[in-house]
Amino acid sequence: MEPLARINRAIEASIDTVAGPSSPPKLTQAMRYAVFPGGARVRPRLCYAVAEACLDDRPEITDAAATAIELLHCASLVHDDLPCFDDADYRRGKPSVHKAFGEEIAVLAGDGLIVLAFETLSRSAGAHPARIVDLIGIVSRSVGAVHGITAGQAWESEAAIDLEVYQRAKTGALFAAATEAGAAAAGASSQSWRTLGEILGEAYQVADDLRDAVGDPYDLGKPIGRDEALDRPSAVRELGLFGAKARLKHKVAQAAASIPDCPGAEGLRASIHLEAGKFLPPEIQRLAA
Amino acid sequence: MEPLARINRAIEASIDTVAGPSSPPKLTQAMRYAVFPGGARVRPRLCYAVAEACLDDRPEITDAAATAIELLHCASLVHDDLPCFDDADYRRGKPSVHKAFGEEIAVLAGDGLIVLAFETLSRSAGAHPARIVDLIGIVSRSVGAVHGITAGQAWESEAAIDLEVYQRAKTGALFAAATEAGAAAAGASSQSWRTLGEILGEAYQVADDLRDAVGDPYDLGKPIGRDEALDRPSAVRELGLFGAKARLKHKVAQAAASIPDCPGAEGLRASIHLEAGKFLPPEIQRLAA
Repeated sequence: MEPLARINRAIEASIDTVAGPSSPPKLTQAMRYAVFPGGARVRPRLCYAVAEACLDDRPEITDAAATAIELLHCASLVHDDLPCFDDADYRRGKPSVHKAFGEEIAVLAGDGLIVLAFETLSRSAGAHPARIVDLIGIVSRSVGAVHGITAGQAWESEAAIDLEVYQRAKTGALFAAATEAGAAAAGASSQSWRTLGEILGEAYQVADDLRDAVGDPYDLGKPIGRDEALDRPSAVRELGLFGAKARLKHKVAQAAASIPDCPGAEGLRASIHLEAGKFLPPEIQRLAA
Repeated sequence: MEPLARINRAIEASIDTVAGPSSPPKLTQAMRYAVFPGGARVRPRLCYAVAEACLDDRPEITDAAATAIELLHCASLVHDDLPCFDDADYRRGKPSVHKAFGEEIAVLAGDGLIVLAFETLSRSAGAHPARIVDLIGIVSRSVGAVHGITAGQAWESEAAIDLEVYQRAKTGALFAAATEAGAAAAGASSQSWRTLGEILGEAYQVADDLRDAVGDPYDLGKPIGRDEALDRPSAVRELGLFGAKARLKHKVAQAAASIPDCPGAEGLRASIHLEAGKFLPPEIQRLAA
């Protein structure tokens, strides 16, 4: 199955487990609204690509891992959009969850998605509970209070902040979890896959800065020019458009070179180059590097 | 070790894993503040009591299960206290987390505690990953969007609400998780332990209604008379003080009678009677039933 269809089907199955007639309807509607229609599903597709390079011998576990990662990503977006943080009215081209369902349900939808991520992993264990325990460790650290998304968001409330630490927690951690989890789901050792995810997280951050500078707000489903307006650090502000595009290219080459030995290394290398192209909107792809 | 000291030590060890120098300080301070000093730790002590009745052969797994349950309980209190829900200024006799640290950090502290609960379970697996997978299923369902705490809180946003369903999700689910998890942590079958937790959850709800009616706000660390003031349903409003106290006594007897066959059934029965007494403040214990 094509990876985007595969992840959407896996997420649908996960959400279906909570969206029955005995659940509070607004909450489960909001949880579904927060994950469908999705964005590019970059992280779960990365998880699949690594699992396939490691032979993906338990696809139901890989599905659970990829789903957990995407649910946690979406949960973080729901909470980040809340009035006390970004106070964002729109997300992916439609009203944010708290605008559509109210703040209470938005807080709870985020909580519910976090919990569902772990429940989904526990359901898929079958005869491989040790893989699930590994995956829960990987995934929980990537959203946790030390180096995970929760930590990343919390650094915004501190007076002194190390930009690299902040971006690694806020963006890099879930990319690193995607590669580690892809390997762990396929029964491979996850440790050596971390670097690939970290570098791709950095690449994605640069691409995000480029999109904010010159993307089409209609295609992106959110306003652009926010880094400049809010005086936020960005690769474009630091290096200029061409410099940022060159850094992205360099990161992608670095990522491809970091792939550990595995049966599908060649195919994975090719697909990383292909996928990285999709990070960027057409406006930027057309820019000569 | 005495159960209260045991759970506090286990929670301390869990919080210590996130409170290092590389974590965002406000977030981890707020997480610690949300769990220390604790309340009576009723749910984790119930988890221990059941595990001991089942011989508690892996105390480190029981510690992780009891800790996860208490972290999730505390996370729910932090989020429930937020301005968009109860807007509570005080909790356990001190300013609520959002009053002390701001709303952003309160949202993140709740998120961080949820994630830490699952991470703590994954860390304790050792040679028993299948027990951890069971525990993650039990614990995640008890705080999830169908019958768990998140569902319970979300029912408050619905126009039509079944009181029994609401209370079972909001209060009962975590008690049921405590008994199920105690059994699962000790390698026993958890299913037959659910009823005990559910009945104790109902008993606790009645005791909570009694505390709200006649407790000492100073001892409780929160205002009383809220059920009456907010026109909320309560066993005291339905049955009167004596009627509510009689229902509590009946629930405790029912609970004691529901204990499944296990090596420590006798001791557990005695401790349930003893513990249930502690549910109540002295004002109510003195009331003739």
